[in-house]
Formats: sequence, structure tokens, C-alpha cells
Amino acid sequence: MTERLEVLRGQVDAALERAVAEACGVDGPVPPRLREAMGYALLGGGKRMRPVLALASASAVGGDPEAALSFACALEMIHAYSLVHDDLPCMDDDAERRGMPTVHVRYGQATAVLTGDALLTEAFAVVARSALAPARVVRLVALLAEAAGASGMVGGQELDMAGAQEVPPVEAVRQLHAMKTGALFRAAARGGAIAGGADPVQEAALERYGVAVGRAFQLIDDALEVEQGEVDASDAHEAAVSLALRLGVAAARAEAQALVEEARQIAAGFGARGEQLAAIAARVESRRS
Amino acid sequence: MTERLEVLRGQVDAALERAVAEACGVDGPVPPRLREAMGYALLGGGKRMRPVLALASASAVGGDPEAALSFACALEMIHAYSLVHDDLPCMDDDAERRGMPTVHVRYGQATAVLTGDALLTEAFAVVARSALAPARVVRLVALLAEAAGASGMVGGQELDMAGAQEVPPVEAVRQLHAMKTGALFRAAARGGAIAGGADPVQEAALERYGVAVGRAFQLIDDALEVEQGEVDASDAHEAAVSLALRLGVAAARAEAQALVEEARQIAAGFGARGEQLAAIAARVESRRS
Repeated sequence: MTERLEVLRGQVDAALERAVAEACGVDGPVPPRLREAMGYALLGGGKRMRPVLALASASAVGGDPEAALSFACALEMIHAYSLVHDDLPCMDDDAERRGMPTVHVRYGQATAVLTGDALLTEAFAVVARSALAPARVVRLVALLAEAAGASGMVGGQELDMAGAQEVPPVEAVRQLHAMKTGALFRAAARGGAIAGGADPVQEAALERYGVAVGRAFQLIDDALEVEQGEVDASDAHEAAVSLALRLGVAAARAEAQALVEEARQIAAGFGARGEQLAAIAARVESRRS
Repeated sequence: MTERLEVLRGQVDAALERAVAEACGVDGPVPPRLREAMGYALLGGGKRMRPVLALASASAVGGDPEAALSFACALEMIHAYSLVHDDLPCMDDDAERRGMPTVHVRYGQATAVLTGDALLTEAFAVVARSALAPARVVRLVALLAEAAGASGMVGGQELDMAGAQEVPPVEAVRQLHAMKTGALFRAAARGGAIAGGADPVQEAALERYGVAVGRAFQLIDDALEVEQGEVDASDAHEAAVSLALRLGVAAARAEAQALVEEARQIAAGFGARGEQLAAIAARVESRRS
């Protein structure tokens, strides 16, 4: 099963290479430094969770995964841009990511801001260039913008940066994660379904799948950080927003387990076509880093 | 004639207010601070050149200007986001704009980065929500992304920030401005035409109009800065990229004059329906600040 996810991941990686080449054609006007930084941010590895989820979702409803490939690239471009901006000194101030210097360390802050801006913009270009029916493309653009914008990912990052004066209620922390991380998972599952030609019932089921997997992903992320000693309650920000610190590691893992089970059941409803979705749920459950 | 441009501007201002309200609904999940900063960046005045141009362009081809209103809002959101990011300390480091503190001075750098990101994202949402035929919406999304992205506005800003080791050839400076400023004017004119239902010949004519007006705008901008003593050749960056310093103020103004004339002739080709475009050209020519 994992092999089939690797096939999807290979499709995504190849499509991302093509998308950057198309956006930054060698003889085009894109400044070489910007082109290089975009490639550095986007093509340097990563689990490709969101795009693989979109392809698996298209496949689950009987569509060709290729139909969701442009949308999948757009999701990864948006994820990559968010990392570049979140790493900036005025945000999380991270000097390394995946063992490599972050974009602003390597290319300077101005180019890092512009690299993020360019990747976000290109995400919409790649969806608009897809060969899907225009009405479907318009739905995907709207879905992507809603998930990525002020009421989704960007709003979640603002909440995360805001630094509450007092510890927020757990429900507010869940809302923060639903926006910052969950919105893109949810859009991945639903958008993949739309690209694959889902009927409304399938689309709604896959949206629930995306919500469950996104929540499980975040809970396990938070649990791993505590288990591996990367964060503890002495950090006031983490003490407020880490679900593993707020709920306890065991409770966070139990909740993630229930969500993975829910995702598996939704996947099972799609029969053999849902096997990739089941494999993604299993991978979220078993991740160790 | 100017009165009719003011009517279009009023339509744009009202539509921008609605677009922000729709993006950030009062009971929605958008953090209040982000909502406020988005309004501050977008609704605080400005000439609304690009959106008015888009409406006038739709009108010139016999379309209802309302048809281009969503696209016009998107143009202004992209213009506003670019100002917020360009003002950041790591870019131009400007503390004031239009006599008010810039977004990062007022809301902090993290919120300024996120405000720009949110406005850029919302630009695509507002186009996707428009009532135009889906095929037309897809063309507008593609046009907007191309104009705003790495081969357009963002690429131009990267060139501007790069700080060449030696003075670039004048042609390279023209290319920088064509990307940084020109791309959005060109897209405004062409996108307005598309929204208004232009045929290919009209669309091409209006694209040429947008290029001419965008170039004239930049030349006069550069001339005004020198004439009003805001920049001079002692600033190495300005000495390199100001067309008024590279060509001389008189030559820059003469070139702008010829471009305004070209734009007027294209406008005249649309008869009475082109009068708003002619008025925009006149306004570009006569601006004093």
C-alpha cells in the first residue's frame, strides 16, 4: 500500500518540477535568484501529504488522479510558501528546515518574502492552467483561496503569532489548529474529490475524511514534539497551543487514534478505490517524525 | 469627464468594502486584528487607478462596468498587498504611506506579512466568486496570477531589490518597470476587456492601451520625484533605476507624452465608449503627485 502512495508522491514531485519550469521558463523574465529560491523552497523534499491526499481523493471517487494533479501542486505551493513566511525572523525566526538553511538565511529576507508571494500566486496560476472544465476550476480556485486565506491558514497563523495575554480555552486552540493546519487538509480532500468528479455525497464524505486526518495529523505532531523532548511546558507559547501539553500526550494520542479510525471507515466506504486513503490514515497514525 | 471617473471610483470603493466584509464576515473566524489590518491597508484611500482602468476597459467594449467589478477589486487587493510587503523593513523600510503609519509600524511585522498574504489570497477568492461565465473567470485568474507573480510584479520587485553591482542598461531598467508596475496596468486593461466581453481584436487593442498607460505612469512618477526633489543622483539605487535620472526629466516627460497620445488614439478607436479611457490617459498626463 505504501508503494502506491510512493507512486502518487512521484507523480506530485514530477508535476511540481514541471510547474516551476513552466512558471519560470529558462528564457523568461523571472530573475534567476527568485527562480532558484522558489525551487529551493518547493522542490527540496517534504512528505507531500496534502497533494498525495488530493490525488488519493480523486482516485477514491473513480477519477483519474491526474485530474487532481494541478490542484495538488497548488496545495504544495501554498504549503511551501507558508513555511517560507512562517520561518521569517519576524514570525517563528527559524534558521533551519529539514536540516537545511531556511530561505531567508540562504537568500535574504527580501527574497524570502518575495519567494513566498510568488509561490502563493503561482498556486492559482497552476490551477487556472489545468485542463479541467472551467466550472470545476472556478470551484477549486475558490476552495483553495478560502482554505489558504484570512479565514483559514493565514488567519490561523495570525492567531498563533498573536500571543494571547492569558491561556486560551482548549476550544480556541482547536480552532487555531483547524485554521492553520486543518483548512489545507480539508481542502486537499475535498478539492481532490471535485477534480475527480465526485457527487455531492462523496464530496461531503471526503471533506469529513480531510477534517479527521488533518486533526489527527496535528495531534500526533504535537504528541511527537513532547515525546521527543522538543517542547515542554516551560515555553509559555507551547504550553498554550500544544494540544499534547493541554490535553496530555496520552489523551492527544487517544483522540488522534479515534480520528484515524473515523478516516479509515470513510475510506472503507469507497471500497477498493479507498485503499490509498486508508494508507494515508495509517501513515499519519504511524509517523515517527 | 473626470466626474465619470469619480463614479467608477465610487463603485470600486463600495465594492472593496463589500469584498472585505465578505472575506472577513463579522462572526467569521478571521482574527479581528488581521481583519482590521486588511481594511487599513486596502480601504485607506489611494487613486484606484488599476480598478478604474479595468471598469473603463469593460465599458469601452460595450460591457457593463459591473461585470469587471470583482476583477477590479482583485487588482486593488494585489496592489495593496504589494505596498504592504514592499514597505517592510527588509524591503524598502518605509514608515509612512499617504501620511499614515505603514501596516508593519501600526500592527507589527508579522501581521503585516500576513495581511499581505491574506489580501493576495483574497484577490483570487473575489474573482472566483464573481458571477461571470466560468470560462471567463478562469482566464481572469490566469491573467491576474501571471501579472502579479514571478514573471510580473513580484519578479520586478526582486529585480528592484537585487541591487545590481553595476548600473544596468536602460533596457534592463525598462524591463524592471514593465514587470513591477506595467504588468498590473496591462492586466487591468486586458482583464477589464475580457470581463466586458471583448472580441480578440478589442482585447489586443486594450492590452496595448494598458501597456502605454502603465509606461507613461511610471515615467511621470519618476519625473515627479526628481522635479519635487524627492530623489537625486546621489542615491545610487535611484541613479540606476529612475528613468528620469537615466534619461533626463525632459526626455522622460516627452516619452510619457508620446505614450499618452498613443493611449488616446486607442481610446478614440472605441468612439464615445472610449471616453473614460481617454480621461484616464489625461489624468496620468496631468498628475502632480
